[in-house]
Amino acid sequence: MTMNRRILLAKRPDGLATEADFRSDEQPVPELEEGEALLQTLYLGIDPTIRTWLSTAKSYLPPVEIGEVVRSAGVCRVLESKCERFQVGDLVTHLCGWQEYSIGTDKSFAATFPASTNPRHTLGVLGSTGVAAYVGLMYVGQPKEGETVLVSAAAGATGSIVGQIAKIKGCRAVGIAGSDEKCRHVVENLGFDACINYKDDGFREALKAACPDRIDIYFDNVGGSVLNEALGRLNMGARIALCGAISVYNADKKPPGPANYLNLITVRGTMQGFNGMDHWGKHPEISAELAKWMDEGKIRNYETILDGLDEAWRSVNMLFTGENVGKLLVRIADPSM
Amino acid sequence: MTMNRRILLAKRPDGLATEADFRSDEQPVPELEEGEALLQTLYLGIDPTIRTWLSTAKSYLPPVEIGEVVRSAGVCRVLESKCERFQVGDLVTHLCGWQEYSIGTDKSFAATFPASTNPRHTLGVLGSTGVAAYVGLMYVGQPKEGETVLVSAAAGATGSIVGQIAKIKGCRAVGIAGSDEKCRHVVENLGFDACINYKDDGFREALKAACPDRIDIYFDNVGGSVLNEALGRLNMGARIALCGAISVYNADKKPPGPANYLNLITVRGTMQGFNGMDHWGKHPEISAELAKWMDEGKIRNYETILDGLDEAWRSVNMLFTGENVGKLLVRIADPSM
Repeated sequence: MTMNRRILLAKRPDGLATEADFRSDEQPVPELEEGEALLQTLYLGIDPTIRTWLSTAKSYLPPVEIGEVVRSAGVCRVLESKCERFQVGDLVTHLCGWQEYSIGTDKSFAATFPASTNPRHTLGVLGSTGVAAYVGLMYVGQPKEGETVLVSAAAGATGSIVGQIAKIKGCRAVGIAGSDEKCRHVVENLGFDACINYKDDGFREALKAACPDRIDIYFDNVGGSVLNEALGRLNMGARIALCGAISVYNADKKPPGPANYLNLITVRGTMQGFNGMDHWGKHPEISAELAKWMDEGKIRNYETILDGLDEAWRSVNMLFTGENVGKLLVRIADPSM
Repeated sequence: MTMNRRILLAKRPDGLATEADFRSDEQPVPELEEGEALLQTLYLGIDPTIRTWLSTAKSYLPPVEIGEVVRSAGVCRVLESKCERFQVGDLVTHLCGWQEYSIGTDKSFAATFPASTNPRHTLGVLGSTGVAAYVGLMYVGQPKEGETVLVSAAAGATGSIVGQIAKIKGCRAVGIAGSDEKCRHVVENLGFDACINYKDDGFREALKAACPDRIDIYFDNVGGSVLNEALGRLNMGARIALCGAISVYNADKKPPGPANYLNLITVRGTMQGFNGMDHWGKHPEISAELAKWMDEGKIRNYETILDGLDEAWRSVNMLFTGENVGKLLVRIADPSM
């Protein structure tokens, strides 16, 4: 009998997650019923949104309940199937959770990729991360050649792709990151025109210098004071695409909002929230375009990979302490086996 | 020789304006040069934006400098003309400032109305106030039948028109105002479906009860905590039209922004600043539609009128202390003479 090791939410984290917030167990993998498929988790994708699901904060999905498997996207291999949708050997992204095996059905929120695809790319650049970058920049931001695109968390999974698409579209790409080392990476490896360390005292002046024609599009992953500074430096008709707010997800109490929102009136600007999932029907088309850009060497993909289920909670913290570069993944099983 | 009495900015107000912030003088009305017209001020339109011009805050127009005539819209009669644009007897709205006479040129930001128009309407419902209401609701909000439209400062000049247009468009119109008396006026005289007093302790619960299907469009005139509460009660795909922020214009330091802005991500909402002036070319068409609705009795117009130049600074305060209902005007000369 195959056993399924799982990580369950034991209590809601207060600030950064700790080991005591989780517990693990092992359950026999259930027999498949008609309409089900057995999926083996290869990699978990670790996204900031997981932290919001561990709290009771309102989000686009309900909180994970105490005692439930922690919700998470992952890439899985289909091991057995009693449903039409999944064929044995398929590579699928799925909200599989922090466990070794999960059950897929015809109704699962899952996407199938050719078995030849790099399984890690299905979670990152060709998966929901790449789609979020594309949707936020292209649909909300609507970049025009020569415009200035500012991106926070620019060394992260989403931000790194946003800036590279902005370059493809003929824009000036300016990143914001949390260390000089990351800023170098963003400029030297990802090809941004500039990148600013938001922890530096002279941040406001550096932002001004890096955006001499002001900001036409700001893709926001962090919220807080960085969003506020960006609001203070907008060009006429600027668009802000709200993707997330890493800086506040761990906060006990909701921090104050951006006082500079009033500048939206002065510049006739727009601030718009979005979710890549709303454009599910467009995912195949968008990821085909991203794959083409990767093949042409126009988008470079970076990853930080940890090993084993027990690393999952620790990896979530890395998103907030700024330890990862690129897509953050936890390897659960060897994809070559 | 005709003398022109003027009110000049003596120093920048700290909070509400005081008499000491202004001084008056009299200057001879200058001889007209070629290309100029002499305009006599009939009414001044007192708008919250005047308060921002008295500060050094960034706005869509530069601050009024110390010693300058206070900037203000007004409706004027053309007394003499040496330019093609203005004919003697014309009724024009003009940024005439707080003075009895001003000079118009072909380049003036002015609009001409038929001499039969009620001169007060050219500043209010048929002028920039009505246009701001129309542009914010129709262009930014894009109301659909059955949607819920929330409007702050609902008893004020702009808000009262927003809600009445919302009703014409088949929406549920919910107002927010600062006294029970105003709330009664908004429901009984303006025909809103509901109106809530934001000073009441149970404001959040009352907002929930008045917007059972949540908020599809919020037209914001006030900012601050009211904006924050509205952000917390949005429907999916909601639109916020940012017109102004009465609650902060008098503030010494910029108050914190709306912490609930994050909800824009959850509901995929949009918050957009606008300025009716950007749609200058549409003004004749928009005011013709508003005039038709007035003739049909679908839009009712209310005004608060003070008399004399010396009341101008005091009237600005009334916008922030909530003493006016409808369009606030200062009569400078008898329009019938």
